[in-house]
Parts: sequence; C-alpha cells; structure tokens
Amino acid sequence: MHRYFLNEKIGAVIELTKDQDVFHHMLRVRRAKVGTKAEFVDVDQKLVVGELVEAGSDSATVKVLEELKQKVELPVKVTLIVSPVKNDRTDWFVQKATELGVDRIILTKMERTVVDWGKQQEKKLARLEKIALNAAEQSHRLKVPEIDFMAYQDAINENKDHGLVAWEESAKEGEKATLLKVAEEAKSGERFTVLFGPEGGLSVEEIKGLAAAGFAPAGLGPRILRAETAPLYTLSALSTIWELQEGM
Amino acid sequence: MHRYFLNEKIGAVIELTKDQDVFHHMLRVRRAKVGTKAEFVDVDQKLVVGELVEAGSDSATVKVLEELKQKVELPVKVTLIVSPVKNDRTDWFVQKATELGVDRIILTKMERTVVDWGKQQEKKLARLEKIALNAAEQSHRLKVPEIDFMAYQDAINENKDHGLVAWEESAKEGEKATLLKVAEEAKSGERFTVLFGPEGGLSVEEIKGLAAAGFAPAGLGPRILRAETAPLYTLSALSTIWELQEGM
Repeated sequence: MHRYFLNEKIGAVIELTKDQDVFHHMLRVRRAKVGTKAEFVDVDQKLVVGELVEAGSDSATVKVLEELKQKVELPVKVTLIVSPVKNDRTDWFVQKATELGVDRIILTKMERTVVDWGKQQEKKLARLEKIALNAAEQSHRLKVPEIDFMAYQDAINENKDHGLVAWEESAKEGEKATLLKVAEEAKSGERFTVLFGPEGGLSVEEIKGLAAAGFAPAGLGPRILRAETAPLYTLSALSTIWELQEGM
Repeated sequence: MHRYFLNEKIGAVIELTKDQDVFHHMLRVRRAKVGTKAEFVDVDQKLVVGELVEAGSDSATVKVLEELKQKVELPVKVTLIVSPVKNDRTDWFVQKATELGVDRIILTKMERTVVDWGKQQEKKLARLEKIALNAAEQSHRLKVPEIDFMAYQDAINENKDHGLVAWEESAKEGEKATLLKVAEEAKSGERFTVLFGPEGGLSVEEIKGLAAAGFAPAGLGPRILRAETAPLYTLSALSTIWELQEGM
C-alpha cells in the first residue's frame, strides 16, 4: 500500500483538494479509483489505512478504516551534521539516510568544505526535502526527516543529549569503542547527534572546538569511508545496537 | 599516501612498466617524481610503503621501504548475492559495498529482476571491477572484492559456511534476531553469504528454494530498505558486531 504524509491531524475522514501534492499523486499519478486503499501519516505520526470513497476533479474524500500501530522509527532521535558533497552524492545521501532512519540532517560549511551552493541553497534544500519525503514514504517511515542548512557554530551548538564526531584518526589509533559506549548509554527519545567532516577531513582546530562543544571523537571501524558513506554506516550501526540487539 | 594494488608478489623492489595501470596512474595521472612515496598491496595482501627511485618514460622502479601490518579486512568473508538494479545504482552499490568491506559480489537474475544487461554484461562487469578497484584503493582495503555474474542456481549453490536471505516479511513478523545470531556464530575466515531480492522482492518459491539451499530468512530492522540499501545496512551491521564489538 502506498504511504502519504499529511500536514494535518487525521480524524474519521480525510478531505483532499487539488492544490495538495497528495491529491495530485494519488488521483493523477497513481490514478486511484473509489475503493483504492492507502496509508496516511498525520502530523502526530498517527498512521491509518484509508479508502478513497469519493473522487472528483478538484477534491477527494478518504474514509479512515483503521489506525495502525507500527514501531518503525529509531528509538533515539539521530541528527547528522554533514558538509555538502560534490555532484549528486548529497541527493542520494539524503535518500539513504532517510531509509536508515535519520531524524534530522543539518548541512553546514566546514573549514575544508569545497562545495558552495551559494544562491542555489534554497533550491537545493527544497530538492533535498522532496527526496526525503519520497524516501520516507517508500521506506514506510512515520516521520519525514527535517533538513536544515545553518552556520557551523549554530549547528554544533544545537541541543543534544549525546554528541559524537567521526574521526578517522580515532580508528587509526584503534579507538573503536566510543560509538558503542555512547550508543548504549542513550535512552529512548533522547537526541543523538553525530558530526562528519567534509571530503578533505576535519582540521585539528575543528576537532578541538567540537570536543569543547560536547562531541567525542569516535572511530567507525578500520576502513576509510567516504564523507557520504560514514553517516550511513553510523545509522546502520545504531540501528543494529538499538533495534536488532536491545530491542529498545 | 595513495594505495595501489599489484597482481604480483612484492620483493625488495617493484618494477613498473608503461603497460600497467599502476604505472600510468602513478607517473602520468599523479605525476609522481623520484622520492614520491606510495603504498602497494600485492597478491597475498602484503602491504608495503615504497619510494619511487627511478622514473623513465617506459618504466619506473619503486624501492620497498617497509612492510605495514594493518587489520582492515572484515574477519569473516562476506559474499553478497544481489540482482542488478536500475540506472547507476549498481555502480554506487559496488562502490559503497567495497568501502564497507565486502569480499565478493555475485550478480544474478532472480524471478522479478527487471534489469537485463544482455550483451552489455561483459562491459558492465569490467566497469564494476574498475569501480571496486578504485574504491578499494580509496578505502585502504587489502583486497579488491571479486565481482561475478552467474546463473541463479549456481549462485545459491556456491560454497558458504553461513547463509542468510534478507526477507522483509521477517522484519514485519518482528523476527530480527537471526542476523545477530548467525553473525555471532561465525568464526574468523569463514564464508558468510547474504542474498538480497530485486526491487520487486523475492517470490515465496524463491524463499522456499533458498531455505533448502541453506539461506535462513533474516529481517533488517523495521524500515523498508531499497534493494541496493539493504546490503549496505547488512555490511555495516556485521562490521559493528565483528569489528566494533567483538574485536574479532
């Protein structure tokens, strides 16, 4: 069943109008007919199965059949702070991170960030938000990850309960327990923030500043991962610890 | 330092000739001069630091300075059996799986595989092998993953010590312990094979046949992952268990 996200609370019926993307996608793209069922998620992450009972050219009515209870979100809210990367790699990073359960993505310019979106920034963000929405629908999430672009100092000072910075040197020094240790300390509902350097890596000064801001350096295993791969490894590792092992 | 893979055993010196990719890349692309150092990995995964001591237009000589001991390969050999996916997603899947430590990738046609490489197959494989080589260099691996294309029945009957099949229904049934259980049973040096269905999913008949061939169904957490994302989640989970936790 296809899943749609609505920017409203869901009651007994859902009224769709042609100005909504959901209307366009369900009625025009997927050509839903009366009787077609779909899943709808509301602003409170309430998930329901709805059936199309009325389909006009300007509006449509969906009758709510039942509410579903699904535990599909990571128990701990993971924020990834990353630098934009070249080509379309930021696009697919957002798609994959959404599939893997990220709660929030903060894009920011770091010392060695080479990509400069300049005036394109708003357009880029809108595109990434669309990618996240589609990935959230496809992976049957209950939440569409937030995506923000902000100044580095603001990014690293955002509220968090746990902070880590992926630091290659830590891996080289054989320091690989931090990710596990901090992950196992995290409690359901807390904010777990991990920062990843750009393709050129983080400067020693940035690492120092991050330590002061509450980001502990953590290795991600013995292999060198690309800027866009490391966050996906981290999300998968956290899912392994929180969802497969502890069954949080 | 850049890392190169050689199809030979390394002794006290390394002789490069212009017909070799390594010669072309080191001398022409990276314009190495006498005194330039690089890392070289031989056919036995022996890693050395070498210094360019002679650079001609047709040949070059590298003096081996020291051997390095690095533990960068997953302790258990992971084979991924996958179906080709659309667009360039097979390309980046191979790149990411290589970064994440895959030992071997077997591409095969499954019941619902839509992609048909046809006559392009050899060309596609050559391209994927180049992507794997570059990713292995960049992620500082000691091994370039093997990539094969074979018939489905041959693929599922290849030797293995442990076999899993990623099965969405398992996740839905809340069956999420199998991946962990089997991973924890695996011993260093063993062959751990995981099969992933195509975009359309596996048929019930395929699942039955896979059970008979020694592939246990395993869930990968509560979210629906795309065909090319699930194997990357699995590699990351296995690295978490074998490298971060057990320190195998």
